[in-house]
Amino acid sequence: MSQRAFTIGLDYGTNSVRAVVVDTADGRVLGTHVFEYPSGDRGVLLDPAQPHLARQHPADYIDGLRVAVGEALNDAGRDPSFARDRVIGIGADTTGSTPLPVDARARPLALDPRWQHNLAAQAWLWKDHTAAGEAVAITEAARAHAPELLSPIGGTYSSEWWWSKIWRCLKVAPDVFDAAASWVELADFIPALLSGVTDSRAIVRCVCAAGHKAMYSKAWGGLPPKAFLARLDPKLAGLRDRLYDEAHPPGRPAGTLSEAWAQTFGLRAGIPIAMGAFDAHYGAVGSGIRAGTLVKIIGTSTCDCAIAPAAVSMADVPGICGIVNGSILPDFYGIEAGQSAVGDLLNWWVEGVCKGGEALHAELSDAAAPLLPGESGLIALDWNNGNRTILVDARLTGLLLGQTLHTTRAEIYRALIEATAFGARAIVERLREYGVSIERVVCCGGIAEKNSLFMQIYADVIGQPMLIAGSPQTPALGSAVSAAVTAGAAAGGYNAWTDAQGRMTSLKKRRFDPDPAASRTYDELYAVYRELHDAFGGVAGARPDLASVMKRLLAIKERAGHADA
Amino acid sequence: MSQRAFTIGLDYGTNSVRAVVVDTADGRVLGTHVFEYPSGDRGVLLDPAQPHLARQHPADYIDGLRVAVGEALNDAGRDPSFARDRVIGIGADTTGSTPLPVDARARPLALDPRWQHNLAAQAWLWKDHTAAGEAVAITEAARAHAPELLSPIGGTYSSEWWWSKIWRCLKVAPDVFDAAASWVELADFIPALLSGVTDSRAIVRCVCAAGHKAMYSKAWGGLPPKAFLARLDPKLAGLRDRLYDEAHPPGRPAGTLSEAWAQTFGLRAGIPIAMGAFDAHYGAVGSGIRAGTLVKIIGTSTCDCAIAPAAVSMADVPGICGIVNGSILPDFYGIEAGQSAVGDLLNWWVEGVCKGGEALHAELSDAAAPLLPGESGLIALDWNNGNRTILVDARLTGLLLGQTLHTTRAEIYRALIEATAFGARAIVERLREYGVSIERVVCCGGIAEKNSLFMQIYADVIGQPMLIAGSPQTPALGSAVSAAVTAGAAAGGYNAWTDAQGRMTSLKKRRFDPDPAASRTYDELYAVYRELHDAFGGVAGARPDLASVMKRLLAIKERAGHADA
Repeated sequence: MSQRAFTIGLDYGTNSVRAVVVDTADGRVLGTHVFEYPSGDRGVLLDPAQPHLARQHPADYIDGLRVAVGEALNDAGRDPSFARDRVIGIGADTTGSTPLPVDARARPLALDPRWQHNLAAQAWLWKDHTAAGEAVAITEAARAHAPELLSPIGGTYSSEWWWSKIWRCLKVAPDVFDAAASWVELADFIPALLSGVTDSRAIVRCVCAAGHKAMYSKAWGGLPPKAFLARLDPKLAGLRDRLYDEAHPPGRPAGTLSEAWAQTFGLRAGIPIAMGAFDAHYGAVGSGIRAGTLVKIIGTSTCDCAIAPAAVSMADVPGICGIVNGSILPDFYGIEAGQSAVGDLLNWWVEGVCKGGEALHAELSDAAAPLLPGESGLIALDWNNGNRTILVDARLTGLLLGQTLHTTRAEIYRALIEATAFGARAIVERLREYGVSIERVVCCGGIAEKNSLFMQIYADVIGQPMLIAGSPQTPALGSAVSAAVTAGAAAGGYNAWTDAQGRMTSLKKRRFDPDPAASRTYDELYAVYRELHDAFGGVAGARPDLASVMKRLLAIKERAGHADA
Repeated sequence: MSQRAFTIGLDYGTNSVRAVVVDTADGRVLGTHVFEYPSGDRGVLLDPAQPHLARQHPADYIDGLRVAVGEALNDAGRDPSFARDRVIGIGADTTGSTPLPVDARARPLALDPRWQHNLAAQAWLWKDHTAAGEAVAITEAARAHAPELLSPIGGTYSSEWWWSKIWRCLKVAPDVFDAAASWVELADFIPALLSGVTDSRAIVRCVCAAGHKAMYSKAWGGLPPKAFLARLDPKLAGLRDRLYDEAHPPGRPAGTLSEAWAQTFGLRAGIPIAMGAFDAHYGAVGSGIRAGTLVKIIGTSTCDCAIAPAAVSMADVPGICGIVNGSILPDFYGIEAGQSAVGDLLNWWVEGVCKGGEALHAELSDAAAPLLPGESGLIALDWNNGNRTILVDARLTGLLLGQTLHTTRAEIYRALIEATAFGARAIVERLREYGVSIERVVCCGGIAEKNSLFMQIYADVIGQPMLIAGSPQTPALGSAVSAAVTAGAAAGGYNAWTDAQGRMTSLKKRRFDPDPAASRTYDELYAVYRELHDAFGGVAGARPDLASVMKRLLAIKERAGHADA
């Protein structure tokens, strides 16, 4: 029992920050606390005049750190096996890309009274879409002059990402831009904060944010060349000198716990602080990601993470959002894909159209569950919010086909779930096609835990068992795993990620295995989905047989024994 | 005032029969009465074991005749200008194809206690779909051996029609088939009843029912040749001998009022009884149909009627349900087209999916009215109940495209109205393409009278003013017009249909004129509709540019100034 060691994992979400205190021997959570951000609308600063704006006040992050960790430790303290001096490390994940401007002493500009009410000086939250024009211009410039910059990030630069937002700030608030000594991703800011960094040049940067959002790659010496940035604006080229030359994978420390924070928390000063990472990536770690595992984080949208050995030279996988060496685990390519509307698609139907709430979700699930695959005669495309992977096209929209005068809202609900499952299958097939092995699918997120109908459809459509991560808080757990690995490595021992994951992460007992008969029907329906997907998605060489689509669906429906034609 | 003359119009609908007493000088309705059929479910006999079955008890027709005419006359009697001896004729329209078996004395078999509870001995209501298999077999036999039979009826024989139903009866209730001396359309039964016909061979048959539903044409000497019927079943060939050799257009009497009925009603015996016709056709007459006029009867489904001079040899118009010489007015081709779900499509959305009623219809109309064409980004195909015209394919289903996460139920409601308007435009274009002049569109039915949004969209989409029939009861009025013409002709005078229509029918003052800007946008949207229509409808040579469909709709949406992308 004297060997017990604990780590702290922090998960900075959109509305709150969560801290967990975890036993590194078995992943048991001894203490936890959630701090809701006090500012704005549930932590998000909005501007009625700019509907695409979403910012956060950095003070919320700092207050949240103090309260969440403090209370999680108090919570753990109720367990007699816990002792604060056995906490060996801290890790943190955050949303991203969420950059914020800092001064030369690495302090957020927004903490300076001069800037505290200026929206441009806050953290630019991942879902801020004010920089749509800048994203288009960056994509065009890169396509014309430096196409290699786009190849690891899916071919299109997003309005949600680092350079779009910083350039936008330069345009609309040049005073803020000029006042910023540097910019930092929230995922790097938290470790720097914990480490007491007081020089913006000393902030350690993670390759996860750098590679997926800031066009960083060792292939071209780090961030995009100054010549390229100067094409956008000479001041961006100037900023590059004040940013960083190197970004790092997890496993090494981003710093060590400062005296001040150690005192605040009653922890030992100098314990290692893990590299920061995005929530999806540490969520994948907390779900037990390894070579051959696809982790699906299923929420309003879905983020898919996989890894592939970096020793193997990987061709670009067309339509995949990001492939970055070391972004999830060191020495592996971190591969990120995603679907832009999953839970949101169901919410649109239930809340937006049918005007219901949680109870109606449950009612429609219950009504849809006994339906056989194909029995409704419906098929849908899951593009109400565009298609992130594998078409990388935001200018696509939804489609529903096969309605009769008897089609019910529950049938449509099920067809929308199926559409997202077909979209998920398209991602799996694309990865496999390019040599990424997928032998295991582990799901996490609220839908994975709560909606059995959803999970069974996914198993049947993808033709693979759906496993469910054991922890309901995989990102915070993954941060704690990273802290454990980092601390172990520093001590010369506990350095194997798979070993740490093996001890600290788990799967739920409940799993969803594909039903062979359902899978066979879904194979047919997926073929129809792909015909529509490729035709409306503009895939070169698509040769759909549209004249037979409705008739094929009717034939499948009738075979299901419930034709009402 | 001594010249006043009145006629009675009867309209046998699905749930009730209506009688009107009309002044032939100006179409004024002096008396009216509606008799709700007492049997079954609002007049329809159902069988839980056979969901496609829909029958009616002939006693309801006879009771309805007595009560509706009797009460309408009593109602008219309150007008001092009315006198029963100035009633000069009676006309009737009915649903169809609604055949019923009769004995040798022209009495419905169902009135015989032996058959009164046998569903096969009742009238087979137009919407009875038990004979789907027979319809397919008839279509196949005709395509293989007598394709000319199908050319006036759109190329496909329907389960709703005469021969399908009679053949079905022969198969499932051969005792009823054997007991029937003849079969008669309800549209011919009512005039025969009023005329006191007591010999099934003496029943006068209208070309409207014969030509549109029973494959009757002078081109092949009347009903289908015995050799053809014998291919289906030798007993059908035998029945042909007991049916009829000739069918007649309206304008000549089907008979004269019997002594018995004259006594019942207090009318003069011997006044002419007009030829029967289907409700849509006399509805077109009551809406003022003439060459160059398209009458749209808009209800749960839509029936379109037009006429073209029979002197002009008319090629078949592909995809048009029926082209029958004399079926609407003598010496003109009666042309019938239709859309299988219009009001039903909106009812499906409002009642079936959104779980609302009349109030929600109104709410969604109000919310959809201010939207600009294309502003929702949506486009739909109106095929939830298949496509009657111009594709003649029941095995087509609905489609909705362009949804985002912000799409509202009101936007979808409007898109469904627009879809039916596009379907209506496809019919108008097809008719014009084959030389049928359409200079005027007159609408009738509940939607035409009540839903301004619907009518304005139709005007904008079709690019033609939408006029509205003055009478809310155009079929009954048309029956009265036919009676007036028939009575006038018998008297040697009042024989011009246009003259009678000019006096007795009217248009509402309110009309809907196309808005040029809206029409321009709808031209673009119609082009998209036709691409989808032709692609999914299997039109030969369709070359849709599907990859650009969603983007074109987004561009139109953004032009409308309300992009939320």
